[in-house]
Amino acid sequence: MSSYSVPPDGLDANEEFIRNESASISDVMLDAIVQALHEDDAEAVRNLVIPMHAADVAELLTLLNTEQRHECMEALREVLDPDILAELSPDLVEEVIETLGPEKSAEAIAQLDTDDAVYVMEGLEESDQFEILEALTDAEYRGELREGLAYPESSAGRLMQTTYVSVPEFWTVGDTIDYLRRELDLPDDFYTLTVMDPRFKPVGSLLLSRIMQNKRETPIRDIMSSDMKLISTEMDQEDVALMFRKYGLVEAPVVNEEGRQVGVITVDDIVHVIAEEGEEDFMKAGGVSGQDLHADLLETVKLRLPWLIINLGTAILASFVVSRFEDAIEKLVVLAVLMPIIASMSGNAGIQTVTVAVRGLAAKEIKQNNMWALMRKELGVGLLNGLVLGGVTMAIITVYLGDFKVAAVFSCALLLVMMVSGIAGFAMPLILERFKIDPATAAGVFLTTFTDVASFFVFLGLASWVL
Amino acid sequence: MSSYSVPPDGLDANEEFIRNESASISDVMLDAIVQALHEDDAEAVRNLVIPMHAADVAELLTLLNTEQRHECMEALREVLDPDILAELSPDLVEEVIETLGPEKSAEAIAQLDTDDAVYVMEGLEESDQFEILEALTDAEYRGELREGLAYPESSAGRLMQTTYVSVPEFWTVGDTIDYLRRELDLPDDFYTLTVMDPRFKPVGSLLLSRIMQNKRETPIRDIMSSDMKLISTEMDQEDVALMFRKYGLVEAPVVNEEGRQVGVITVDDIVHVIAEEGEEDFMKAGGVSGQDLHADLLETVKLRLPWLIINLGTAILASFVVSRFEDAIEKLVVLAVLMPIIASMSGNAGIQTVTVAVRGLAAKEIKQNNMWALMRKELGVGLLNGLVLGGVTMAIITVYLGDFKVAAVFSCALLLVMMVSGIAGFAMPLILERFKIDPATAAGVFLTTFTDVASFFVFLGLASWVL
Repeated sequence: MSSYSVPPDGLDANEEFIRNESASISDVMLDAIVQALHEDDAEAVRNLVIPMHAADVAELLTLLNTEQRHECMEALREVLDPDILAELSPDLVEEVIETLGPEKSAEAIAQLDTDDAVYVMEGLEESDQFEILEALTDAEYRGELREGLAYPESSAGRLMQTTYVSVPEFWTVGDTIDYLRRELDLPDDFYTLTVMDPRFKPVGSLLLSRIMQNKRETPIRDIMSSDMKLISTEMDQEDVALMFRKYGLVEAPVVNEEGRQVGVITVDDIVHVIAEEGEEDFMKAGGVSGQDLHADLLETVKLRLPWLIINLGTAILASFVVSRFEDAIEKLVVLAVLMPIIASMSGNAGIQTVTVAVRGLAAKEIKQNNMWALMRKELGVGLLNGLVLGGVTMAIITVYLGDFKVAAVFSCALLLVMMVSGIAGFAMPLILERFKIDPATAAGVFLTTFTDVASFFVFLGLASWVL
Repeated sequence: MSSYSVPPDGLDANEEFIRNESASISDVMLDAIVQALHEDDAEAVRNLVIPMHAADVAELLTLLNTEQRHECMEALREVLDPDILAELSPDLVEEVIETLGPEKSAEAIAQLDTDDAVYVMEGLEESDQFEILEALTDAEYRGELREGLAYPESSAGRLMQTTYVSVPEFWTVGDTIDYLRRELDLPDDFYTLTVMDPRFKPVGSLLLSRIMQNKRETPIRDIMSSDMKLISTEMDQEDVALMFRKYGLVEAPVVNEEGRQVGVITVDDIVHVIAEEGEEDFMKAGGVSGQDLHADLLETVKLRLPWLIINLGTAILASFVVSRFEDAIEKLVVLAVLMPIIASMSGNAGIQTVTVAVRGLAAKEIKQNNMWALMRKELGVGLLNGLVLGGVTMAIITVYLGDFKVAAVFSCALLLVMMVSGIAGFAMPLILERFKIDPATAAGVFLTTFTDVASFFVFLGLASWVL
């Protein structure tokens, strides 16, 4: 039963849900839980929370503050749905595990699939990991977790589930169905079977729906698909995500260096990686990290200050360029008035280009073969935008200030800077990627420094030369 | 057979693939195809392209320029894999359909699942849609497409597949297996069955893997899951995506207003929506649209110029503020030198806050109950960052310019502006959302205008008052 099955106003579950049209916890429900926590009524908290889906409870915990979260976990301690742990964001996992303590945590983690357990464990300090591993009673499971944690961070090995279903290629549909009925130690949900050769190497995949639609005597070799995507344990999760997304995969086998299957990744494990791809770039471009919203005050300052200090450095650089032209500004104060416009315009034009280039690289849509054509296009866009905006600003400045010479200098500088920003905005992410620096993080800072310096230098330089 | 199955250097398919560790088309392959197109060797193009996965062909078409794309489609005309159409980005669909012409397009579209066909059709001009619908030979299919296109844009109705598998709740596992073997008109892939009551309303869902693991005589009512997420035809695709993502769904039934099932959405249909969620915000924040990279020169200018013109307006506003303080700048030119620093710092601090707020809203992690606490946190972050950065800049300016009074004015202004930017950056997306304006698009422009104006006003105002 989901939370939507207990609608307050007597609609039936489906209708309530449809009316709601949202996968988010309702404000009414949230208020009721906060109220119960406030009144220290653990019984009421349990009554409200237990019927909820694990993902909804995780959302609830995210929305509570630290103290409320602690109280809520204490209320749920003895009736905890282990799946909640797997649904929490990494920063909350640690907090919740600490509230539960190692024994209780180990008990909950032992009930998770290996991939979920590895997700929960990988966010913890090494000493906490050790305590929980020690507290696990099932030695085999402990070994599997240790193995999972030994794979590199963000690798397919960390994401995969080690329980999977595979069958030999010489079986029939009937053999397969009998095996599935007989075998008890299978994953909860699976959608495809891997077909193996005698060396345990995957040779094909078989959708459950195809098994269902064929007669018992059909050899699985005849109905399996050999167009199968394999994932190596070392593959980065971003690449795994791109593969699932591109080929519309639901499940894919993970193989070790020898090509033998060691696990399986299902789409529900990868959906959050897919979702995070674009989000991460969004956050990085804004100079913040993914944990920001849930971090407390001091932690947030620690997360944001380094970025601002880098920006202070680059701003001082731009300001230094302006200081070289103090004489010109003293003579003609209107230059100081117009400075912010040219810096803002070239910055924005550059950011447009950087944004396109960063996404194009991430989606692998910019390659050797089209790079130069795209660069030429950016130069053309800068030229055309520069001509239009240069014309507009020339008219505005001439009319408003009545000084055609200043207007002409400004517009020429703008045109030039627009082209330079376009080229720089496109080239910078490509260069950063070549040097293995993440373009999404670095491009913005480098670019706005560059456009500021270029704008001030070109505009003030041209002005002190011509005027 | 995928492209990876024909490795150039004699490795077997899996090893080649693993070595490659990428879901992207190789540069070698790309060069070979471009070469064949250049030599007008249609036969060679076909030999290279036909073994490729439809998604790889779509990627190939994306990487080619308009002329090469046209030649490539002409070469593939008679051997076209219809799935390629469904894998193309919306801007390329139109171009490719035009190359194919209505008859050939209709022939290809008729072979697609309804959801894919609707995706291909929805990107076309109405006149093209009409021509293709007329050219379809199967009247029933034509009706289904018409119906699909009648749902609102970006709604679940557009995304759903109208062929789905459902069974009555009184059946057993055996009844279900027999039905699946007998029935020929089923979707290619499916992962769950919907269980219906006699009024055709969904009452539960049943994973194929559970059918496989139970005896023939087991009633499906006993093994179905009633914790089922229903989607209404009108639900926005972003909400559908959030639901799939949150609950790790693989398949969900779509119901009409009466609660009767009319279709099904599978995770592979929704994965690209999930991927686009964050990407779109990233693009919008950068002032560009998703089609930018593939648009030609003039189209790109048309896409980007409006944003730059809005920015020109806001920059002029900030510049106007500066112009009110021309006298102060004339007396103390160093103010013009320091202006860019304070504008840049407050802009960056504001962008950090806006970014966090926009993502928090999109992920529904900011709600009535935690809004004020988060706002207070932002004020605190602004205060602390302002104190640190104010201290640092005070020291730098005093040492470098030897003018303690200017340094003190600058640092006080910075502290004040940092707090104001933090609050504004957090509040602005919330306010925009309340007025149903997309925060991701608008927040950046409003915010940087605001931080620029605030910086210049506070700094220059304070300076002309105190100094």
